[in-house]
Amino acid sequence: MTSLLHPTRAVALGFLLAIVFGTLLLMLPLAHAGNQSAPWLVAFFTAVSAVCVTGLVVVDTGTYWSTFGQSIIMILCQVGGFGMMTAATLLGLMVNRSLRLRTRLVTQVETHSLGLGDVTNVAKVVLGVTLVSELIIAAFLTLRMYFAYDMPWREAAWSGLFHAISAFNNAGFSIHADSLMRYASDAFILLPIMMAIIVGGIGFPVLQDLRVKAKDPRHWSLHTKLTLTGTGLLLIIGFVAVLFFEWGNPKTFATMSMSDKLLSAAFASVSSRTAGFNSIDIGAMTPESWALHYFLMFIGGGSAGTAGGVKVGTAVILALLVIAELKGHSDSEAFGRRVGPSAQRQAITVFVLGSALVVMGTLVILRSTDFPTDQVIFEVISAFGTVGLSTGITADLPESAQLVLTALMYFGRVGTITLAASLILGERRMPYRFPEEHPIVG
Amino acid sequence: MTSLLHPTRAVALGFLLAIVFGTLLLMLPLAHAGNQSAPWLVAFFTAVSAVCVTGLVVVDTGTYWSTFGQSIIMILCQVGGFGMMTAATLLGLMVNRSLRLRTRLVTQVETHSLGLGDVTNVAKVVLGVTLVSELIIAAFLTLRMYFAYDMPWREAAWSGLFHAISAFNNAGFSIHADSLMRYASDAFILLPIMMAIIVGGIGFPVLQDLRVKAKDPRHWSLHTKLTLTGTGLLLIIGFVAVLFFEWGNPKTFATMSMSDKLLSAAFASVSSRTAGFNSIDIGAMTPESWALHYFLMFIGGGSAGTAGGVKVGTAVILALLVIAELKGHSDSEAFGRRVGPSAQRQAITVFVLGSALVVMGTLVILRSTDFPTDQVIFEVISAFGTVGLSTGITADLPESAQLVLTALMYFGRVGTITLAASLILGERRMPYRFPEEHPIVG
Ligand SMILES: [K+]
Ligand SMILES: [K+]
Repeated sequence: MTSLLHPTRAVALGFLLAIVFGTLLLMLPLAHAGNQSAPWLVAFFTAVSAVCVTGLVVVDTGTYWSTFGQSIIMILCQVGGFGMMTAATLLGLMVNRSLRLRTRLVTQVETHSLGLGDVTNVAKVVLGVTLVSELIIAAFLTLRMYFAYDMPWREAAWSGLFHAISAFNNAGFSIHADSLMRYASDAFILLPIMMAIIVGGIGFPVLQDLRVKAKDPRHWSLHTKLTLTGTGLLLIIGFVAVLFFEWGNPKTFATMSMSDKLLSAAFASVSSRTAGFNSIDIGAMTPESWALHYFLMFIGGGSAGTAGGVKVGTAVILALLVIAELKGHSDSEAFGRRVGPSAQRQAITVFVLGSALVVMGTLVILRSTDFPTDQVIFEVISAFGTVGLSTGITADLPESAQLVLTALMYFGRVGTITLAASLILGERRMPYRFPEEHPIVG
Repeated sequence: MTSLLHPTRAVALGFLLAIVFGTLLLMLPLAHAGNQSAPWLVAFFTAVSAVCVTGLVVVDTGTYWSTFGQSIIMILCQVGGFGMMTAATLLGLMVNRSLRLRTRLVTQVETHSLGLGDVTNVAKVVLGVTLVSELIIAAFLTLRMYFAYDMPWREAAWSGLFHAISAFNNAGFSIHADSLMRYASDAFILLPIMMAIIVGGIGFPVLQDLRVKAKDPRHWSLHTKLTLTGTGLLLIIGFVAVLFFEWGNPKTFATMSMSDKLLSAAFASVSSRTAGFNSIDIGAMTPESWALHYFLMFIGGGSAGTAGGVKVGTAVILALLVIAELKGHSDSEAFGRRVGPSAQRQAITVFVLGSALVVMGTLVILRSTDFPTDQVIFEVISAFGTVGLSTGITADLPESAQLVLTALMYFGRVGTITLAASLILGERRMPYRFPEEHPIVG
């Protein structure tokens, strides 16, 4: 890198600055509902959770913070979501250029850097998509809240805007203490929110393909095809599994009408991979559903969007590799394209390091609490995948454990995208190769 | 395959036959301490556990079965361990020939099959190593039990032989209800057993290198070097982590002397990866130690030995891949050799399918019991890795869950080695290649 600041480091630093700034703002007495200064850990935890669009909270957003405080949180979510989408897209452009250069066998000059034109261009489009989506959803929610819930206009508009921004950015913050449980059977609230979650979480590269080549699906990139297929599959798996696991649970689905069951399962499936709203009580779900959540939360949403986790594309690449092996194919293929070996190696690396982070986080938090392991694992994966769902223990964790969660949110958010990019930008051919040997497997 | 029976299918069938035969024998009233016929599920579970050298039990081996029944169990362990070591070594030979043929670009005639000479040769050496190791360890244990525990000769010899065979085959069966907890501070019992576990579990290919090229470590195979390094690292990690996690636990280490702590931690580290004896109460350990056990039990021991799990070599290949990626190297290297890409793909496949099996098993058992998730995960990984440790719930699980455990033991034992072999034997070059594309990761 010839630039002063490596782009992946710039992203990491940018998020850090936003967190520091957010913490300071949230410590202002003005941000507190009781006009006191919030303790630094509460402000810090909330700022990290907002900037990393996670939604884990140690205090109730709606009653602890003033409207000013809630606005800060909303803006931090917006900045975090927008920043991540833009930064990840720009890193993706750089990666693509670097790959193109390499395949063209051009001399390896360091031309990874982007012009100002690219940056403003991407930022503009991202901003446009974001604002349009958020305003439409906010309008929907506001109207519904005004007409069906007898909210005054002001309150309905504030709630609609807050939840629209929170949903599009997959932030999962709600000004209701029960997240969205009061709307559990209201499709007019939940469906727009699900739309916002999916659009925001599918990732910018996919949105671009859908926008620019809407009528030409054959020319969508392999990434778009893989992400859409993977997302569809995960939505179906999550829907069916939640329905199956909760069907007879007296604390959740058993007493619901058929249509409410379907709506709740659909919402849980959409929201669990990274958005982090809940329309039913997570703490009351079966342990099977929790285990399902581990899986969905760890995978997360699409690359270069507002979603967290190791990303759908990463998981699909791994799945394709395993399928190819089982078929006895030496190439991993999909949609008439071959997945390059370096993409496979990066996918495995992201997966393994993500798992290692989760294991470490779990072990460290288990040391300092008496909460059962399954709840701790839930909390840790929720933080790593910047999901924000909780079985209800976040506020009761000791301070050290809360700090571990902030670290997981930060590395889960910033780490996965910068890691993959820096792996690709840093890769180089070996000057010599050792002789190959085939060690025994299994 | 031109042969009537594909070799990997022959292995799977052989284990199935041994299980059926063992179940029938254990149902004889003669096998039961009270001279009654054991229920079929008890006999079946015990036979699967013995043939798959796991050691999970639903009844107490020492009091439920007669000496005849215990002998059946011992013989099943011996047959299972010997069969697995021989079969896996032979599959390994076939795989090596197939790889050599391919690199020599000889026409792809189906010459995977082995001559009778190979089979008897390998079987002879495996039998020799097994008998010599077992007799030495049995002698040690018998002497110690006779002199230090005032056992009559007959009883001491029986106990020594049983535990030596159980240890070398990593079977984990004990005729004591408390496994080896009564010997928790007796290094003269635990150290020989640890030796037997390591020698039996390191795998035949490594033993051969050590035996034949003892003075020429530079010419050991990459597999041997990777397995020895990985085993050493895992032993150290397990030792330090158990010590750290249990140090202040009043139910385990807190009341022990310093030397007992060290001995117990060492024994837990050696035994947890697959042998399945325990010198301290697993159920009384901290949740952190359980989580550590998930990790160690899943990895298991060396390939083509009596150990289970996805194997140390598999884990090391994955680790090397991640390390190479982080360094920006396109090749994954160790000891001046390059790990072939097909070995990497196989390692990932074994890892992913093993994880999938564990997740599935956990979900299914969670459906049918109220035991906490952490204990269920422990049981499932213990069965998959044919470890045999338990937090104490095996006997109390419903019958359906016990059947799931038998399936996990069988697939954990037979699946990992046949899967890898069949992947390699089945791999073929593609007649054409699709254009490569690099989807986004992370
Ligand atoms: K979230
Ligand atoms: K075992």
